[in-house]
Amino acid sequence: MDINQLETPVAIVDLDRLEANINKLQRYLDEHGIINRPHIKTHKIPEIAHMQVNAGAVGITCQKIGEAEVMAQAGIRDIFLPYNIIGEAKLERLMRLARRVTLSVTADSEFTVRGLSGAAERAELELPVLVEFDAGLGRCGVQSPQEAADLARTIVRSPCLRFGGLMTYPSNDNADLFVGETKNLLKGDGISVDLVSGGSTPSMWEAHAHPEITEHRAGMYVYGDRYTLKSGAMALEDCALKVITTVVSRPTADRGILDGGSKTFSSDLLGLEGHGLILEYPEARIYGQSEEHGHTDFSKCEHKPEIGERVTVIPNHCCVVTNLFNQIVGIRGNQVEVIWPVGARGALQ
Amino acid sequence: MDINQLETPVAIVDLDRLEANINKLQRYLDEHGIINRPHIKTHKIPEIAHMQVNAGAVGITCQKIGEAEVMAQAGIRDIFLPYNIIGEAKLERLMRLARRVTLSVTADSEFTVRGLSGAAERAELELPVLVEFDAGLGRCGVQSPQEAADLARTIVRSPCLRFGGLMTYPSNDNADLFVGETKNLLKGDGISVDLVSGGSTPSMWEAHAHPEITEHRAGMYVYGDRYTLKSGAMALEDCALKVITTVVSRPTADRGILDGGSKTFSSDLLGLEGHGLILEYPEARIYGQSEEHGHTDFSKCEHKPEIGERVTVIPNHCCVVTNLFNQIVGIRGNQVEVIWPVGARGALQ
Repeated sequence: MDINQLETPVAIVDLDRLEANINKLQRYLDEHGIINRPHIKTHKIPEIAHMQVNAGAVGITCQKIGEAEVMAQAGIRDIFLPYNIIGEAKLERLMRLARRVTLSVTADSEFTVRGLSGAAERAELELPVLVEFDAGLGRCGVQSPQEAADLARTIVRSPCLRFGGLMTYPSNDNADLFVGETKNLLKGDGISVDLVSGGSTPSMWEAHAHPEITEHRAGMYVYGDRYTLKSGAMALEDCALKVITTVVSRPTADRGILDGGSKTFSSDLLGLEGHGLILEYPEARIYGQSEEHGHTDFSKCEHKPEIGERVTVIPNHCCVVTNLFNQIVGIRGNQVEVIWPVGARGALQ
Repeated sequence: MDINQLETPVAIVDLDRLEANINKLQRYLDEHGIINRPHIKTHKIPEIAHMQVNAGAVGITCQKIGEAEVMAQAGIRDIFLPYNIIGEAKLERLMRLARRVTLSVTADSEFTVRGLSGAAERAELELPVLVEFDAGLGRCGVQSPQEAADLARTIVRSPCLRFGGLMTYPSNDNADLFVGETKNLLKGDGISVDLVSGGSTPSMWEAHAHPEITEHRAGMYVYGDRYTLKSGAMALEDCALKVITTVVSRPTADRGILDGGSKTFSSDLLGLEGHGLILEYPEARIYGQSEEHGHTDFSKCEHKPEIGERVTVIPNHCCVVTNLFNQIVGIRGNQVEVIWPVGARGALQ
């Protein structure tokens, strides 16, 4: 099937570019001796996870137990879940998963560690737990090397847990300093930090500049998006994910309406201007959205589209866009090669 | 099952409130002789659509053919699709649907009308088409009564189409004026405007103040959200949809992290401050989101939550939240009564 026969809006992935993106990051990380553990929250598609592992990734990263369950069912054998897993029901699911695959998680509090330890004890297994620390972004994570060292010691003392190292996001200079200090604090206890997991796509080509970070988690690098373009980490020709839309209305000389809105692109701006880049009309601006309509200003475009014309959009943020589609169409040239269900979309946390 | 046993994040709907919301709007519209055609984009759940029809709605409104297909399969017999349906594949699906249910659509251009007419002719059926006009919001829609009248005449002349009236969003004073002028322009041609479809939830209790609007389309009124609260159309006790989340991290004395982020709440702000209202901590502010985390400032709260505590969030915009869940849990009091798949979520446009 030719891509022009696909109904819009449709999310397409150029398979040549996808493969090239996967291989390029793997090569770079291999050259620098950094472990690659890509984050599958971007695509949520088991076959792409397998492509990443086959290219050399040690395993994958998931953000929800539900994602990890889908990936385990699809045969992925090594999964990192950098999340504070809390609550009996979730802990039980986590332990069921830990029996089937090589699994590790994170914690940033004693509360989380206690829950993990109790669940692992009941399940009679040993679970590796990394300490999450805050490298400056103000999300989760302990705030100081002292807290990190204390929590590492707590993990070491906790039945059925193994201290798995440190984890942060993104990899940056703060992280290097933080890791160094934490290691020093733990040296006296004979506790070694065997793994430090960092990551991000925008800073992926600087991973080698952070000697303390031994593992890299990138997600968006497989697809690329406007945010990644702006960061300079990827070029327009690297973008594998696009959304084809149709101009369904031209109410005024300057305004055009696309058949994709906030339920296609999400409202994520990430500091960008407008809701996407229209490849055929780069001067156009998707200035507003309703749920199924994209409101576009074509006033700066010399030629303007006709009603019924199809236009190709690079979205602001690929991770949230793929999460809005039930399926993604893999293309080679102009031909449809595969239609992937977004297997882990909407999975339970 | 008690709601406290549900894993978080979970979207719950209070069924008593849902039923009350459905009945209250129906009663109001009945009193004023306004046709009720609720928009199911908000919930995308066939059973709720049936509740709306059983309460007295003439039928439903869908925003995508895929939604209409799901609703038709579930036994809904009267569907309005206020969208410019363009392209051969979509037109064919539309005609298949038109054979099974009472269906009407909109157009705001001759291009759309030509496509509809050709498809209806091939399918050997008659399709009602309403002219969409712009009441000031700058989305789709013809811009002037003259354009509306011209397009109505085109529809009347087009084989296998029937002019079904006028449609806009939202109902407002501009709309009344626009309809009045369009009717005058069409009077000479003997073309009557039998139906004028308007709508919105924020302005729903003013529907009777727009004498030219004969049909009301509201979506959010079934659930309510922070945006609807701010508009004054619904009170906090009317809100039927909530998202229960867990505090999974307390990195600092003031900061708390919820297990719901932009893939749970979307990034829709709709002019509001923060990403949701936490009922147990109304002074808290969800100031940021990552995909599976909500970053919350509890500094203004006298008591602050513990890790592991569950908190209940009224989201900014219910329509995009339900679109992110595979299922919605219907509760009565504290007990789970039904778990609904969000049947039309992610359906093809």
